[in-house]
Amino acid sequence: MTAIGIYGSAGRMGRAITDAIETAGATLAGGVDAGDDPSPLAAAADVLVDFSTPSAIEAHLAAARAAGTALVIGTTGLTPQHQSLIDAAAADIAILQTGNTSLGVTLLGILVREAAARLGPDWDVEIVEMHHRHKVDAPSGTALLLGEAAARGRDSTLAELRVDSRAGLVGARSEGTIGFASLRGGSVIGDHSVIFAGEGERIELNHRGDDRSIFARGAVRAALWLADQPAGRYRMGDVLGL
Amino acid sequence: MTAIGIYGSAGRMGRAITDAIETAGATLAGGVDAGDDPSPLAAAADVLVDFSTPSAIEAHLAAARAAGTALVIGTTGLTPQHQSLIDAAAADIAILQTGNTSLGVTLLGILVREAAARLGPDWDVEIVEMHHRHKVDAPSGTALLLGEAAARGRDSTLAELRVDSRAGLVGARSEGTIGFASLRGGSVIGDHSVIFAGEGERIELNHRGDDRSIFARGAVRAALWLADQPAGRYRMGDVLGL
Amino acid sequence: MTAIGIYGSAGRMGRAITDAIETAGATLAGGVDAGDDPSPLAAAADVLVDFSTPSAIEAHLAAARAAGTALVIGTTGLTPQHQSLIDAAAADIAILQTGNTSLGVTLLGILVREAAARLGPDWDVEIVEMHHRHKVDAPSGTALLLGEAAARGRDSTLAELRVDSRAGLVGARSEGTIGFASLRGGSVIGDHSVIFAGEGERIELNHRGDDRSIFARGAVRAALWLADQPAGRYRMGDVLGL
Amino acid sequence: MTAIGIYGSAGRMGRAITDAIETAGATLAGGVDAGDDPSPLAAAADVLVDFSTPSAIEAHLAAARAAGTALVIGTTGLTPQHQSLIDAAAADIAILQTGNTSLGVTLLGILVREAAARLGPDWDVEIVEMHHRHKVDAPSGTALLLGEAAARGRDSTLAELRVDSRAGLVGARSEGTIGFASLRGGSVIGDHSVIFAGEGERIELNHRGDDRSIFARGAVRAALWLADQPAGRYRMGDVLGL
Repeated sequence: MTAIGIYGSAGRMGRAITDAIETAGATLAGGVDAGDDPSPLAAAADVLVDFSTPSAIEAHLAAARAAGTALVIGTTGLTPQHQSLIDAAAADIAILQTGNTSLGVTLLGILVREAAARLGPDWDVEIVEMHHRHKVDAPSGTALLLGEAAARGRDSTLAELRVDSRAGLVGARSEGTIGFASLRGGSVIGDHSVIFAGEGERIELNHRGDDRSIFARGAVRAALWLADQPAGRYRMGDVLGL
Repeated sequence: MTAIGIYGSAGRMGRAITDAIETAGATLAGGVDAGDDPSPLAAAADVLVDFSTPSAIEAHLAAARAAGTALVIGTTGLTPQHQSLIDAAAADIAILQTGNTSLGVTLLGILVREAAARLGPDWDVEIVEMHHRHKVDAPSGTALLLGEAAARGRDSTLAELRVDSRAGLVGARSEGTIGFASLRGGSVIGDHSVIFAGEGERIELNHRGDDRSIFARGAVRAALWLADQPAGRYRMGDVLGL
Repeated sequence: MTAIGIYGSAGRMGRAITDAIETAGATLAGGVDAGDDPSPLAAAADVLVDFSTPSAIEAHLAAARAAGTALVIGTTGLTPQHQSLIDAAAADIAILQTGNTSLGVTLLGILVREAAARLGPDWDVEIVEMHHRHKVDAPSGTALLLGEAAARGRDSTLAELRVDSRAGLVGARSEGTIGFASLRGGSVIGDHSVIFAGEGERIELNHRGDDRSIFARGAVRAALWLADQPAGRYRMGDVLGL
Repeated sequence: MTAIGIYGSAGRMGRAITDAIETAGATLAGGVDAGDDPSPLAAAADVLVDFSTPSAIEAHLAAARAAGTALVIGTTGLTPQHQSLIDAAAADIAILQTGNTSLGVTLLGILVREAAARLGPDWDVEIVEMHHRHKVDAPSGTALLLGEAAARGRDSTLAELRVDSRAGLVGARSEGTIGFASLRGGSVIGDHSVIFAGEGERIELNHRGDDRSIFARGAVRAALWLADQPAGRYRMGDVLGL
């Protein structure tokens, strides 16, 4: 059985990952939190999952690299400097870093890119997301990730196509743009819809997150897959063979 | 059979109303357009339907009042001055003026007010609408009408509760507000959703307009109902007995 | 503070109700399970909530009646004989019995009846529900409850109008019928949609249950309301003032 | 400009295709109906579109083959014998035969197969369709086409996995099955949803047909593409480069 170690084991995601390891029939190699030495766990585990804080990333990368242990990074708020550190470590170990470990969202991104590529610019793209009333930013990181997938499908970048909201006399829609709308309310974990609206027909590609456990489960599935990979940098799509 | 006369008979809505009169088994008393004298038609018809222009309203009201004929007004872009003229004419004849003659939207407004009144302010209200890519303003007039229904259900006004869009670091949602989001794309005739998001559950009340004929059909149903009413001012909800 | 006692406190709903009592700022008077004497709790509590088993209902009713304590019954699988016992006890104490304690579903039923009454038989009614893959019966009890609401709105009964599924050469739809469709998959807690499909437009009234806690929270809200009512039999709609 | 000829030009689809040819900036080579000689049109056109009747297929294939003209067949109700005739003619000319010429549905089928292949059998597949009240059969042909796409994605056939409806005590869901549900009402042109329900999350891939013109427009796009292809048999997916 694959032994998985957790960086950031005391947080909500850490505990959810502990549950997901058991459900998946894997072994928990142990957990480490802020202030602990990350090296013994890196040596004991077959693969590591990191849901800690950006400030701890450098030490975790060093420990994983020294032990030659693969690492899944789900910690958010990373800077370009963190990304450079990850690139460097990926010369020696297998690393998968992602902003969303849900398998459903990962697949949705692939389907959105495919649809955008095939349908042509006369199909307007709109992205709607809904989250709970406590979320402070908009659009969600996942909505932007889906927008980037649509933009890539059209050989462009989201920065060029993005329209964040509409209010007032905004004029007719510009061809090729990607519109975003953010709803907030209740305790919604996260719903995302990507709408392709053509003349007389629509395609809607939706993801609904009903339970926060999906992120832990996806992270464990990614870890089990990553444990067997050679050094290099991977994405969630690789886990699904996409 | 009730004989219905049309002010603005040459426009797209005028032609659709002609079709709807036939479908409903009523009689077309005739049609009049800009430049014509509206009085003979007012005398010949049992009830009039007006989808013309704001500048013609005053003459149409005078003709209907002189003939004692009921009048349905679906013309948009009316000013407070037009509303005063309508109020004055309603002393002598039955008048129904509305921004949306669809029966489905009318009922939805009633349900939204009821839901808002019963659910309490811990259920967050969000309104989403989608229209074709050529629509130049946002939110749609119908979305605002639904927002007013929700606000009335909470003994407030939309002006106090309205939040038009979210982009960037907007902070947590304020209790009691009503959020709007506008999607644009393809040839969508008009979809509206009012979402009530509570802790752990959601109610969504949706209307989908699949065909523009719904506005003409609703106007004819309103006319048939209005023909039998005493002088006064009426709303679409009255047609449904609400 | 109102003191709430729980019959069936050791089950999953019993534990959820214990949590909901705390969230609501009420007091837990205690809990009783199969084999325990229900009388001391009935005397100690201001109101009782029962999510136990049908076989225990008779003893619980007797204890509540002897103590003069109001009782919310959410236990499912009741027979007509149980209903007669409840009617008899309601001569002396306030009792609310229901198959679904969610406030959202309760409101949805009211809206469905209203919509069915106003829209007329040329608007076809279809009810779709989705539940997790382990559910063994179809349609769901809540779907049937919503179908009954639609039938009542049309001065009929569900038994007369119900069409359970369509497969093969079923012919054109019969006017006035109410169709049901049941989807099963994943871990879905419970989604219900009631669709009114007219010529060229549709109204959809949806409820989505995202979290099982909604049933416990609704039961506690019902209990707090029922504690102040005179003897008699009540429904969930009464709690919402409907 | 490509010149398109229509077999079955007097029917509703024939007239819609005439409109779509104009919109697409192509040329109408002419139209032929039952009783006419199909050969002159086959010689005059660059490509033919057939929305006639199964009984005319043999003569149309012979005329197209003799003239060496490509042929799009959207006629429904074909037998295996018709399919053999098409296969034989495809030795000499380019032929595309399909049950649904909508580009959106074609793309949806591709996305469904991809999703089914990637998600694994623990994601339950449910397919829901809604059509107008006059449709006599269920599920729709397009729903079955989407079910076949899902089955192929799992290296199986729809015949093995199909579950047509659920009513009564049906028991828990069997892993790997594909469920169908058919709604009927109003004037709905055609909505299809394919739901993949996993543990704690759902992906929904939807198509909404808002206007019958989508079938004519897709047929014309297919014809323009097919005019340049070598002899052989093609599918709608080929038009989108899938």
